[in-house]
Amino acid sequence: MTIDMPRLKAAERREQLLAVATKLFAKWGATATTTAAIADAAGVTEPILYRHFRSKQDLFVAITRRMSEETVTTWKRLIDNIPDPDQKIRTIAREFPQHSARLADAYHVIHGALATSRDRKILSVIREHYTQMHAFFYNVIKEGQALGQFRSDMDPSLPAWEIIYMGIGCTMISLNLSDMSAFTIADAIECILSSLRPPDAKK
Amino acid sequence: MTIDMPRLKAAERREQLLAVATKLFAKWGATATTTAAIADAAGVTEPILYRHFRSKQDLFVAITRRMSEETVTTWKRLIDNIPDPDQKIRTIAREFPQHSARLADAYHVIHGALATSRDRKILSVIREHYTQMHAFFYNVIKEGQALGQFRSDMDPSLPAWEIIYMGIGCTMISLNLSDMSAFTIADAIECILSSLRPPDAKK
Repeated sequence: MTIDMPRLKAAERREQLLAVATKLFAKWGATATTTAAIADAAGVTEPILYRHFRSKQDLFVAITRRMSEETVTTWKRLIDNIPDPDQKIRTIAREFPQHSARLADAYHVIHGALATSRDRKILSVIREHYTQMHAFFYNVIKEGQALGQFRSDMDPSLPAWEIIYMGIGCTMISLNLSDMSAFTIADAIECILSSLRPPDAKK
Repeated sequence: MTIDMPRLKAAERREQLLAVATKLFAKWGATATTTAAIADAAGVTEPILYRHFRSKQDLFVAITRRMSEETVTTWKRLIDNIPDPDQKIRTIAREFPQHSARLADAYHVIHGALATSRDRKILSVIREHYTQMHAFFYNVIKEGQALGQFRSDMDPSLPAWEIIYMGIGCTMISLNLSDMSAFTIADAIECILSSLRPPDAKK
């Protein structure tokens, strides 16, 4: 059913199509969602949808890139005035439940595609996403090592991956089996921070 | 296309249907896979499929329960002769890449459903699965506390969840974006073990 909607400017239409696609992908999965269903839910014809996105893949790529950008921007703003690298990581972790609840649909889409998609283009944009997440934490950990707050005999790549692994697992459980675990990513991440402390540091 | 296949005994037919459904769910997602497609791929009619499984949900439940059982059985056998709780956890972690590669299809199915399904019955059997995984690690950690190997001022529930979070995240990345991270769950899990050491323990 196509309902009458006021005509939107190109940029607004693009945003609306992205929002509608994110909701449908999250609800039915990207495989089960057709571009016809997306156009229909957005109140436009398929040719109009194709003016903005050539394919379902293109929509997925745009959703994922948007999410990466929004995540990095939010985190940079959050830690802007925090000098301590371990406090930076804790602040991001404490704010993460709100962040992931706000972006819950996009997380369903990305985690669902990561778990099930075999499409090269889809997997390659997911790879891009985690490369950015990894670089973000890698840099914070490097900074902590330079300041002597973190032990320097550890490849920062490992704790950066630990944070990502923990973040994916915690988000999968808390978004989809809410109330199953009483622990948040802020609780869980303390073991990574404790492993980063120099051997001679007090507690 | 239904091809002629030798008639199987009920138990063998059930196994075959489970194996076929796991493959199709992993490849196309549970939502996109019809019972007709499963029957077809197994070379039987839908009424024969329904004699064994009343619905797609029932197949999913059986796949997940099988995976929980197989995981717990494998792990118990692996650590049977290992006295140290931290070595038990390390041994399971070191063997995990083979374990998850062997059960890769089932992992795709469960992680895909966890990320995307809103079906109560599906989510409830996934909850059962993680409850068993959690109980398993909870008991190993409790044992380590009783032996004085792990600090006793920590709720064992937290590190048990940390292991699960880390396991989900690491498996999602390594099964689907292979070669992206050089680190395995055995590397990543060391930070959890280090946080379990009593404060006065050496190294």
